[in-house]
Amino acid sequence: MLIVMKPQATPDEVEAVNERIRSMGLTPHSIPGAQRVAIGITGNKGALEPDVFVSMAGVADAIRVSQPFKLVSREVKEEDSIIDVGGIPVGGPEVMVMAGPCSVESKEQILEAAQGVRASGARLLRGGAFKPRTSPYEFQGLKEEGLKLLAMARDATGLKVVTEVKDTETLPMVAEYSDVLQVGARNMQNYSLLAEVGRTGLPVLLKRGLSATLEELLMAAEYVLKEGNDKVMLCERGIRTFETSYRFTLDLLAVPALRELSHLPIVIDPSHAAGRRDWVGPMSLAAAAAGADGIIVEVHNEPEEAICDGPQALPTEGFAEYAEQVRRVAEVAGKQLTAV
Amino acid sequence: MLIVMKPQATPDEVEAVNERIRSMGLTPHSIPGAQRVAIGITGNKGALEPDVFVSMAGVADAIRVSQPFKLVSREVKEEDSIIDVGGIPVGGPEVMVMAGPCSVESKEQILEAAQGVRASGARLLRGGAFKPRTSPYEFQGLKEEGLKLLAMARDATGLKVVTEVKDTETLPMVAEYSDVLQVGARNMQNYSLLAEVGRTGLPVLLKRGLSATLEELLMAAEYVLKEGNDKVMLCERGIRTFETSYRFTLDLLAVPALRELSHLPIVIDPSHAAGRRDWVGPMSLAAAAAGADGIIVEVHNEPEEAICDGPQALPTEGFAEYAEQVRRVAEVAGKQLTAV
Amino acid sequence: MLIVMKPQATPDEVEAVNERIRSMGLTPHSIPGAQRVAIGITGNKGALEPDVFVSMAGVADAIRVSQPFKLVSREVKEEDSIIDVGGIPVGGPEVMVMAGPCSVESKEQILEAAQGVRASGARLLRGGAFKPRTSPYEFQGLKEEGLKLLAMARDATGLKVVTEVKDTETLPMVAEYSDVLQVGARNMQNYSLLAEVGRTGLPVLLKRGLSATLEELLMAAEYVLKEGNDKVMLCERGIRTFETSYRFTLDLLAVPALRELSHLPIVIDPSHAAGRRDWVGPMSLAAAAAGADGIIVEVHNEPEEAICDGPQALPTEGFAEYAEQVRRVAEVAGKQLTAV
Amino acid sequence: MLIVMKPQATPDEVEAVNERIRSMGLTPHSIPGAQRVAIGITGNKGALEPDVFVSMAGVADAIRVSQPFKLVSREVKEEDSIIDVGGIPVGGPEVMVMAGPCSVESKEQILEAAQGVRASGARLLRGGAFKPRTSPYEFQGLKEEGLKLLAMARDATGLKVVTEVKDTETLPMVAEYSDVLQVGARNMQNYSLLAEVGRTGLPVLLKRGLSATLEELLMAAEYVLKEGNDKVMLCERGIRTFETSYRFTLDLLAVPALRELSHLPIVIDPSHAAGRRDWVGPMSLAAAAAGADGIIVEVHNEPEEAICDGPQALPTEGFAEYAEQVRRVAEVAGKQLTAV
Repeated sequence: MLIVMKPQATPDEVEAVNERIRSMGLTPHSIPGAQRVAIGITGNKGALEPDVFVSMAGVADAIRVSQPFKLVSREVKEEDSIIDVGGIPVGGPEVMVMAGPCSVESKEQILEAAQGVRASGARLLRGGAFKPRTSPYEFQGLKEEGLKLLAMARDATGLKVVTEVKDTETLPMVAEYSDVLQVGARNMQNYSLLAEVGRTGLPVLLKRGLSATLEELLMAAEYVLKEGNDKVMLCERGIRTFETSYRFTLDLLAVPALRELSHLPIVIDPSHAAGRRDWVGPMSLAAAAAGADGIIVEVHNEPEEAICDGPQALPTEGFAEYAEQVRRVAEVAGKQLTAV
Repeated sequence: MLIVMKPQATPDEVEAVNERIRSMGLTPHSIPGAQRVAIGITGNKGALEPDVFVSMAGVADAIRVSQPFKLVSREVKEEDSIIDVGGIPVGGPEVMVMAGPCSVESKEQILEAAQGVRASGARLLRGGAFKPRTSPYEFQGLKEEGLKLLAMARDATGLKVVTEVKDTETLPMVAEYSDVLQVGARNMQNYSLLAEVGRTGLPVLLKRGLSATLEELLMAAEYVLKEGNDKVMLCERGIRTFETSYRFTLDLLAVPALRELSHLPIVIDPSHAAGRRDWVGPMSLAAAAAGADGIIVEVHNEPEEAICDGPQALPTEGFAEYAEQVRRVAEVAGKQLTAV
Repeated sequence: MLIVMKPQATPDEVEAVNERIRSMGLTPHSIPGAQRVAIGITGNKGALEPDVFVSMAGVADAIRVSQPFKLVSREVKEEDSIIDVGGIPVGGPEVMVMAGPCSVESKEQILEAAQGVRASGARLLRGGAFKPRTSPYEFQGLKEEGLKLLAMARDATGLKVVTEVKDTETLPMVAEYSDVLQVGARNMQNYSLLAEVGRTGLPVLLKRGLSATLEELLMAAEYVLKEGNDKVMLCERGIRTFETSYRFTLDLLAVPALRELSHLPIVIDPSHAAGRRDWVGPMSLAAAAAGADGIIVEVHNEPEEAICDGPQALPTEGFAEYAEQVRRVAEVAGKQLTAV
Repeated sequence: MLIVMKPQATPDEVEAVNERIRSMGLTPHSIPGAQRVAIGITGNKGALEPDVFVSMAGVADAIRVSQPFKLVSREVKEEDSIIDVGGIPVGGPEVMVMAGPCSVESKEQILEAAQGVRASGARLLRGGAFKPRTSPYEFQGLKEEGLKLLAMARDATGLKVVTEVKDTETLPMVAEYSDVLQVGARNMQNYSLLAEVGRTGLPVLLKRGLSATLEELLMAAEYVLKEGNDKVMLCERGIRTFETSYRFTLDLLAVPALRELSHLPIVIDPSHAAGRRDWVGPMSLAAAAAGADGIIVEVHNEPEEAICDGPQALPTEGFAEYAEQVRRVAEVAGKQLTAV
């Protein structure tokens, strides 16, 4: 923490700040300048709250120097984390494609989607059984029946299952059927859920909130790691901006920026930001080019008939070619795609 | 829903859209234009999903015409809702001030704050017992002990208690001690919590998410009303923008805009957006001037010693004068403040 | 400037930073910490560019401590500036209302509007003669004829004229007819125009860009003051956010925040943000409550017939009552409105 | 335009809207619904202003159906535009790399940079001679001397020159020395400059404003095309959001979205958004993957010594490898890079 005093600050005001720092068991370091004094603080274990100082007389600003996160930080662990999802490594030299329908709808649908996904070389199957929806009047998912269908598709194809958990009540049920627990963007700061998810020990795909900073995303991940679970994948899925031409603005600078701050793998969801099938392809290639460790994408055997988000789902037909293009771009960016 | 066709759309493409509309049991209405055709849809009960049409050949855009919310809408109920909080009306001709500390810290602290609040003429006491925090390493509240202290302050002063509920697990406990359940900004789209809160039948203060549109805020309220609980107050508390000079940008245009869309009372929280005591006063007056039904503000007997958010808390000393200023401004805006 | 080193930074990397600081003629001050070293810099006259240091090995961050603006800063001039507009003081104890139509359309229109404005006690007349429009196909203003009509209305009513200047070519002409030069939001960073406007010595109303930070607004004002012209009024007129219910989000926290950073008067334009007549009233009262020095608002004798922005214009009929309400709110906030 | 009436609208209110539409020489088309009436309008040549109707009694909303832009629209011209820059085609099957220093600093610097750029296979040289800066105290460019150095580098290497024009006063001078006129983000809505630039007939690189929507960018381009100059390249260079980890948020969804709306070529500037050299590479690959027609990137022979933006400049050493990677990614996305 660095306290910046106003140019007009009196010696008494400076001393009051020093005194307060000492009363917290910390050490002030005065940096006299031509126009003003600044005071560095050392001795703190974690990040300090700037607000304590900002309200004191003579203080112009209090600037945080330490990062507020710990376990997720690359400063704590230098090498990239590779997360083991039932034998599939996420975060290593390969780019993992996770694909499947928005919602599980029926046995035929999920099986056809899973087989298409498998044929493309992807190794994780996504699909929603519990669907948090903006409107209480919209389809909320097949619930346990959906989970069972996912497990059935896993048995049939060997794909690992990624599915969303929306609350602590249904967490035990979801955990029973899934290989990766997805925490949705709207739940990114549902701290009770994060802690419970952490306690399951299962791999977690944590989506960035619509207006969450990278720091907030990392703090949310910290809630999971704090419970002893370090298997967290960070997922950018589009942020909210003033632009209305697309659903969300896909923020690909998050890939190199998160890479620097944290050792956790980074996954991109191009489907929700684009909201349209024909824009998902270019954004998937862009994600691979930016260096993502994984891409989670919506695929449907009959997109025109999908109950939800059909317009943004890629058809399973043609998906192998899509995955091949992702692989080729990822190679240039220094990654590889799993061979089939 | 209005479907806008591209200028180059063929008659077959137009007919395919008409056919799809009919297949949904709805009626298409063609509007031929000089450059292009548009197709109006009637017969739908709620809002349609534009995405179903956007992906069809020849379609340029699909524009939603109906609002997606129902029970919260002023189209459903024309007169303003007045919510009865233990005999105190929120949403009527008076502006309600709800005040108290960020966190309940001790018996002395909450009692002194409550007495100061009461002396100012305010009639609701706010105070946090369960505190969702961005960092897992920060103070998370006194929990049940905090709730008991709030109830004690209520008994001592007659003030009604507003306190935050952060998850469904602790909801029954929080509901036992409080008169108004506050749902925080980060939980605005925690639909499982909203539904449970709705089922308690208690008045709810629903805070707008950091990047929630007014429509999303109203849809979140719809989750509560759908459970048969129409005692919801909508609370604007600052939104996230590019400006970094303050914590959040207080969006006061939300007051007249929500007033037009919905019959529910509107409350403003100036403390969290401002983040600084000396900016809370002007923003409180601005909220009253904009026509808010209530103001929820942080007050502390010793702000310098507060465990959380001290710098943004108003001191109880001087709070009566603050409330008097709010009252005078509200009068000009056509509201009154409860007399002591 | 404070340079924060990474925890793993080597002594050589720290020394390289010290050396670079010394090579710039400045002095490094080391602050050793438990986890990492920070280095304060003193001796610089203005703000330093963080980028020079961020790219050096071992550097985690470079944090600016000094403000980049000078002449506009309250650190340079402690008391509030009062700007003399032909004898009318803007920035003093009174709140100035500046009102008039979006565009000057005809002699009758501007005269009726001016007389309505005058009758309400307002003392400045706004009106556009040159209109920058998003579309090249929209009405671009009456140009010199509009300026002459404004001057005529000034002669008839004694009101001072505020009008927009859109480029350096037409600046001499606009300057000849106006008492205050308005620089629009889209020109806030048109530095060539700012410098020329500064050289006229006329009072300037500088509108904040749609996504300009307060710091950028102040830097734009600095361009005017640098030319020896310190008669600048800072104008908040709504910023761009994700919310689509209104044209722009009116950012009233800018009032106390700018007040702290700068000595220049602060004006609010509630019309462009609201975009609707019935929301302009509440936002005007809110602006006065927040402590604004002035309010610039659109008024039209026949809003329904206005060539541009009619829906957001207040009718001249009823404007005196509006101004009276603003006056009453401003009084509570410690300001007064000019008596008629 | 579609007018949506309120459910409570009376027949008289509906008729008043119909009457107003007819009075504008247009035709109303009523669409009766279960809850409310909507009215389509036909007969208009361009986009109508929604505001005219929104303020009428009984009207809930007025929704624009036609796009406000014309000449830039793909509805007007279906095939992609290819812009001829002195024999170099921008917008065709190849991806053009435009590279060079932020500012022209000296003969040695610009020559070395130009030779490095040329050796990589890039064919356009960027470099600033007039630099609009946020602060009036920062380096504003070498001006005419800089332009002469650029022309000298062009003569020496055969590269075409892209340089920024910041105002109409210096436009004739800049036009004399450059092959492409760059209009900066802060000038995107400087309509006087856009029209003058249009009249030169030179190719234009138009940067998107920090918070400009795609529609506004296209409307700005329309100002240039309206003057008979259709050689406009649209350039995304990062938008302003709440995220503070990078200078700006690079919005790559703009590539497919602009592609659909317009026939003009699309260029991405990854340097200004990233602000850091090591993030420019991944973002350049991502731009190529997204389908951009060109990439404009900062390169410097000695980035550590650059007067401005050194930390975001790529070194000329290694630039050929960078360009080769871009080429390989562009191939996957269906583009090629010019062979050397």
